Amino acid sequence: MKNVTGARCTLCGHVTEALPGTTVCPECGGILDIEYDYDYIRSKLTKYDLMDREEPGMWRYMEFLPVEGIGNRPRLRVGGSPLYRASGLEKKLGLKTLYIKDDGLNPTASLKDRASAMAVVKAEEAGKTTIACSSTGNAASSLAGNAACAGLSTYIFVPSRAPKGKVAQLLMFGATVVLVEGSYEDTFRISAEAIDRWGWYNRNAAINPYLMEGKKTVSLEIAEQLGFKMPDYVAVSVGDGCTVAGVWKGFKDLYEAGFIDRLPRIISVQAEGCCPINTAAAAHTMNWVPQEENTLADSIAVGVPRNPVKALRAIEESHGVTVNVSDEEILDAMRILGREAGVFAEPAGAAGTAGLVKALDTGLIEKDASVVSIVTGNGLKDVSNAIRAAGEPLSIAPDMDKLLEAFEKKGIKP
Amino acid sequence: MKNVTGARCTLCGHVTEALPGTTVCPECGGILDIEYDYDYIRSKLTKYDLMDREEPGMWRYMEFLPVEGIGNRPRLRVGGSPLYRASGLEKKLGLKTLYIKDDGLNPTASLKDRASAMAVVKAEEAGKTTIACSSTGNAASSLAGNAACAGLSTYIFVPSRAPKGKVAQLLMFGATVVLVEGSYEDTFRISAEAIDRWGWYNRNAAINPYLMEGKKTVSLEIAEQLGFKMPDYVAVSVGDGCTVAGVWKGFKDLYEAGFIDRLPRIISVQAEGCCPINTAAAAHTMNWVPQEENTLADSIAVGVPRNPVKALRAIEESHGVTVNVSDEEILDAMRILGREAGVFAEPAGAAGTAGLVKALDTGLIEKDASVVSIVTGNGLKDVSNAIRAAGEPLSIAPDMDKLLEAFEKKGIKP
Repeated sequence: MKNVTGARCTLCGHVTEALPGTTVCPECGGILDIEYDYDYIRSKLTKYDLMDREEPGMWRYMEFLPVEGIGNRPRLRVGGSPLYRASGLEKKLGLKTLYIKDDGLNPTASLKDRASAMAVVKAEEAGKTTIACSSTGNAASSLAGNAACAGLSTYIFVPSRAPKGKVAQLLMFGATVVLVEGSYEDTFRISAEAIDRWGWYNRNAAINPYLMEGKKTVSLEIAEQLGFKMPDYVAVSVGDGCTVAGVWKGFKDLYEAGFIDRLPRIISVQAEGCCPINTAAAAHTMNWVPQEENTLADSIAVGVPRNPVKALRAIEESHGVTVNVSDEEILDAMRILGREAGVFAEPAGAAGTAGLVKALDTGLIEKDASVVSIVTGNGLKDVSNAIRAAGEPLSIAPDMDKLLEAFEKKGIKP
Repeated sequence: MKNVTGARCTLCGHVTEALPGTTVCPECGGILDIEYDYDYIRSKLTKYDLMDREEPGMWRYMEFLPVEGIGNRPRLRVGGSPLYRASGLEKKLGLKTLYIKDDGLNPTASLKDRASAMAVVKAEEAGKTTIACSSTGNAASSLAGNAACAGLSTYIFVPSRAPKGKVAQLLMFGATVVLVEGSYEDTFRISAEAIDRWGWYNRNAAINPYLMEGKKTVSLEIAEQLGFKMPDYVAVSVGDGCTVAGVWKGFKDLYEAGFIDRLPRIISVQAEGCCPINTAAAAHTMNWVPQEENTLADSIAVGVPRNPVKALRAIEESHGVTVNVSDEEILDAMRILGREAGVFAEPAGAAGTAGLVKALDTGLIEKDASVVSIVTGNGLKDVSNAIRAAGEPLSIAPDMDKLLEAFEKKGIKP
């Protein structure tokens, strides 16, 4: 890969070659970060080249990605999600400029498709035909879907308490799903043993440096969709730290390659009941402390984040803003996204917008700012919390008088 | 609208002016069909113009649509869904060429977004700020979402037996949802009274001739995505008949305007437990007979179709093939779409593919044919049936020996 110079350890700084099967730093076990030759990228690609490309998804940014090509296997169309100017929400919030990036419209309905699509290509490069992970969340379903399309096998280990609906989605994509009667820790351990034993490709954001490179395409898209005019802020929800780190990496790449002339500030949003990264970021320390996982936003309920170093650096480097939101604030954000923008988000997907609302209310950011809020997952993924957020419908006997009565009682004036 | 010549009654042939609020034939009450001036379209648009358009969604086909423009309100990005070459499924089925059009990736996760986006624009043209319908299905959620984005109000009437999850989605989009304690008939009646009383715009495919014009964009996209080289067959599931009629209209429009040089044949798929349209089509009669609604594919469980004339004509004109599938065959199709193509479909969304499988098995269509199968809705819409289709995961204690045992018992060779 002529555009990639190597993989640098985020802990000890050691640089190693970026091979398809590269995982952690051979010196210290730290997470690696893929590094690029920006002069080379600049010599191969301009903003105007990009605009002429027909490829609608994430692979249109090939020069910024750690792959030579994506081979001939079938691929889901990952990325290319819409960026909406949300004028209804702007009015509601008194904010000058707001865009919503709806990444819930990816093939398996979350931003994680960007990482899984990358994992599938890197697995093929490494000569593997089987990929494994331990998760029931968006990582697992996106892996199962993207691998199925490419004709690869997946083994997915989940704790036996996993919701039946999520397990069903995995089975529908043909994954071999192993329910482990035990804790998440037990599940992870047996999956690691199995991965070792059978030599499967490991889709685990804590050890695989390529996943974040897939995720960063969300920022490349945002920039291109805005004609490379950067917003002041980008709001995103934060769990294990990989997504926020990927978002930041995308903007930095574009800046280094001369595609944009300023960088946005990150609004890093966590749940009040689980905010180890924001707590450390706010104190400007890398010494984060594990927390309990008390939030309904399951996709960001990560008490022991797997990518804290990259996440904390991203927030610090961007002069980021940290906001912690309550479950009620998340449900409120789900409602206003639906009502004012027609976007149905899962709780973690709406958390970025909840943080934006709070940052505006508390004066952390200015009303005349321009903001992009990333919706990371679709509300159809978690209908039970949608029911919680939705409120109650009217209920009447089939009679016009009853309808008039019900409208009057609720103050509805048709 | 210079491209539109009028609206012709499907029953008596009377032609009336196509106005924004036009509903049924003023002479006989029949459903109208929008007619175009294809010479005019041809003079304004070529295939090559289309390829250069930046608009990624359904409005890129403006010259083929009964609108002057779409105004300045915010719009969800409807259409532009991926067309996948499904080489895994081709192998599995022994079919030469198969494409899957995944319309479950629309903003509210079904093809109905194409009709609702059109309804919202036509409502605005008619000077209405409120739209109503009676449904709990994809029509309702797509209406609620598309209207919310544009800042329009919606009133949606649903029978009180409606599933809570579907009601929640409507409420999330800010619809005023009225649960009617009674039958679907009661619900429809009170909604009609309310629409009359308050003069709301009516999103009802049985009276609104514009909805089908939105739906036909799926065919315009398929053609463009295939470089205007037509497949032999297009498979689609059929409920009230509007979708299959729209699919056929799209291809006919392209043919009349000289964009394609041959028309595909429709594979019309209904459920064995509810197939009034296919029963009539197979007998080459317009005299369809109401049926019971015995199928798990709720989106096509329509015993009294609202658009039988257009649907039956579409099937007849295309020299179509009719196939009725069992619920088990639908669940099978959900599994193979997930496993071989990475596409997660709701039951009605997979029914088209189920019909294709059956048509191949029974020799109704040839193995060396080229086929596009349209997936009309996302599997996340109906997780309970996905659970039914998915089968059971393995379940083990967290121990390698147990894992080996479980693999052996199931014949899994990692």
